Amino acid sequence: MDAKEIALKSHEDWQGKIETTAKSKINTKEDLAIAYTPGVAWPCREIAENPDLACKYTIKSNTIAVVSDGSAVLGLGNIGPLAAMPVMEGKSVLFKEFGNVNAVPICLDTQDTEEIITAVKNIAPSFGGINLEDISAPRCFEIERRLNDMLDIPVFHDDQHGTAIVVLSGLINALRLTKRTAAGSKVVVSGAGSAGLSITTLLLAYGFKDIVVCDSLGIIDPDSPRTNEEKKHIASLTNPGNMRGTLSDALNGADIFIGVSAPGIVSREMVASMNTDPIVFAMSNPTPEIMPDEAKAGGAKVIGTGRSDFPNQINNVLAFPGIFKGALAARAERITEEMYLASAKAIASLISDEELAPDHIIPDVFDKRLADTVAKAVMELA
Amino acid sequence: MDAKEIALKSHEDWQGKIETTAKSKINTKEDLAIAYTPGVAWPCREIAENPDLACKYTIKSNTIAVVSDGSAVLGLGNIGPLAAMPVMEGKSVLFKEFGNVNAVPICLDTQDTEEIITAVKNIAPSFGGINLEDISAPRCFEIERRLNDMLDIPVFHDDQHGTAIVVLSGLINALRLTKRTAAGSKVVVSGAGSAGLSITTLLLAYGFKDIVVCDSLGIIDPDSPRTNEEKKHIASLTNPGNMRGTLSDALNGADIFIGVSAPGIVSREMVASMNTDPIVFAMSNPTPEIMPDEAKAGGAKVIGTGRSDFPNQINNVLAFPGIFKGALAARAERITEEMYLASAKAIASLISDEELAPDHIIPDVFDKRLADTVAKAVMELA
Repeated sequence: MDAKEIALKSHEDWQGKIETTAKSKINTKEDLAIAYTPGVAWPCREIAENPDLACKYTIKSNTIAVVSDGSAVLGLGNIGPLAAMPVMEGKSVLFKEFGNVNAVPICLDTQDTEEIITAVKNIAPSFGGINLEDISAPRCFEIERRLNDMLDIPVFHDDQHGTAIVVLSGLINALRLTKRTAAGSKVVVSGAGSAGLSITTLLLAYGFKDIVVCDSLGIIDPDSPRTNEEKKHIASLTNPGNMRGTLSDALNGADIFIGVSAPGIVSREMVASMNTDPIVFAMSNPTPEIMPDEAKAGGAKVIGTGRSDFPNQINNVLAFPGIFKGALAARAERITEEMYLASAKAIASLISDEELAPDHIIPDVFDKRLADTVAKAVMELA
Repeated sequence: MDAKEIALKSHEDWQGKIETTAKSKINTKEDLAIAYTPGVAWPCREIAENPDLACKYTIKSNTIAVVSDGSAVLGLGNIGPLAAMPVMEGKSVLFKEFGNVNAVPICLDTQDTEEIITAVKNIAPSFGGINLEDISAPRCFEIERRLNDMLDIPVFHDDQHGTAIVVLSGLINALRLTKRTAAGSKVVVSGAGSAGLSITTLLLAYGFKDIVVCDSLGIIDPDSPRTNEEKKHIASLTNPGNMRGTLSDALNGADIFIGVSAPGIVSREMVASMNTDPIVFAMSNPTPEIMPDEAKAGGAKVIGTGRSDFPNQINNVLAFPGIFKGALAARAERITEEMYLASAKAIASLISDEELAPDHIIPDVFDKRLADTVAKAVMELA
């Protein structure tokens, strides 16, 4: 069978990649009388008197919803809620398998910002956190911000912050390896969607000073800001040299390329025009902005992609299971930028000086230390 | 420890009575590539082209939501969504343990009819059915009806129909035992909430002709209908003899008493005023309308309650796991009145002529045949 046949056959056999399982087995009338009527009335009464006890007696303590409207599914675009379910189920599986966090995939039959906000607010009592997923920009920014203001549980848009955290953790180690500083490095970010904008924001928070962001029209400069509010905001924070021109112009002399944009838009020559020993994270999926062998031929010292079949896979799964594991354990009401930075440093710290190498700047997704390391970093700040 | 302490300690130890479990274990990069990127894109594409395939490739095939707003929780009243969670988790456990149906408890942070309808409509892509639970009357009627009209998955308010099905199954066998017919029996239903009204409707559909419904004001008669639309409707269908007066008046000469109302409102003398060998289902919980020993002293031949510590427990769990098991397997778009009737007959049929006795008119909740028997009855009509 080819990859397509294997994927379809496996999904058909699973009939859903997650199931619900009873922790409270019901084998006797006594079991029934404790877990259901009449015994269940006691925790109900306690919670009615003190809502904080929901975290003591219910799934809220360790269960999140993975919420999408199917409007921007990775590599597939706006395929709608039903077709997005396999992705959200897969994400829910990763939360459980990597972080021991229970996760329920909720695909919403609306792409209206107000309806999405109302729906998430209304299902929130059942959950200890909300992971927003594959919701298109710029709606995703408003949805996340307003829900965080509204709810007392954390709302985290993984496409933005998960990606930013893992990119930063890779960059921290790439800087270590190439003896650069954040403040002294010129960065080009290609892609001004939700991932590009949140990467830029987090890099600035970490201490990078010189970042140029490009979208499909070229360099975003303060004098020709885009209509989108978030791009205008980024224009005001980036491009201190007031550069104009194309992605190719931006890369000339840059230290770091971060691609979350489109396949094949970076050439070997463009990499060759960068500073000595450049860092190239080409994360367009499944086809990177430049293939690793081409980037290497252009002189790249450290190369990362989003793919598991090349070294240095920049994969959100390094971060999100631990992020929510920590946030739930600490009952954090928000996942803050300080937590993003601490998580990125914690992930980077798992690579020792001896292990650090151009092909090994970031832990393997199966590194068993990851979730607890990230969770600890989050909990210390909660 | 007393019952309260045991219930609280157990709930604290469980920290939620259900968990999500991965069917697709992720131990290798190959596992990840099939269940998540890039393999997951194949079922997504298939579903995007043909939405019916969601039932082949996702949890929609075998997962329901147990939805409540916490407005009418059994025995506890309007305790709100957070405090209702232990009940909805317990219900979800019963769906899994008795019917092998995956169920997710969703407690809604709204008691507004329109918001509830919109919330359920919006989360529906993730589920193959919706079990509404503990939503107060009369809102529950409109919510269920409009959602069934709107969605292509079944929406079933268990407090109405589950109760009605199990009451009817008990009555079928009580009629067998006391050699009565449905058409020839006088029935008094005490309680005109969602359970009382749906029991009445189903008994009429089964063939009962003479039903008198009482609420807290006494007999509902056509000339003094209540303001509530559903009670007006019931007034038009019941009380063919145009009786007036109190519950006590109604019981005089009746064959069957069905209580879904309030504790202790029926006396031994009222039972003694009924026809010979009367049938008394006193299902107010936890304290029945009349205690079984009192009903027996008044001459009751068959006595049922909602409690597990007396014979003939009239418990919804006899019906709902099998109802959804069958509806999901058949991909039914609705659960129809014909399915309710078939389910009631199927449950009743599990008691053989040899087993049938005043203390044994209905199967034990742990009868392993139940879910499949009910599911089969539902599937044959789907």
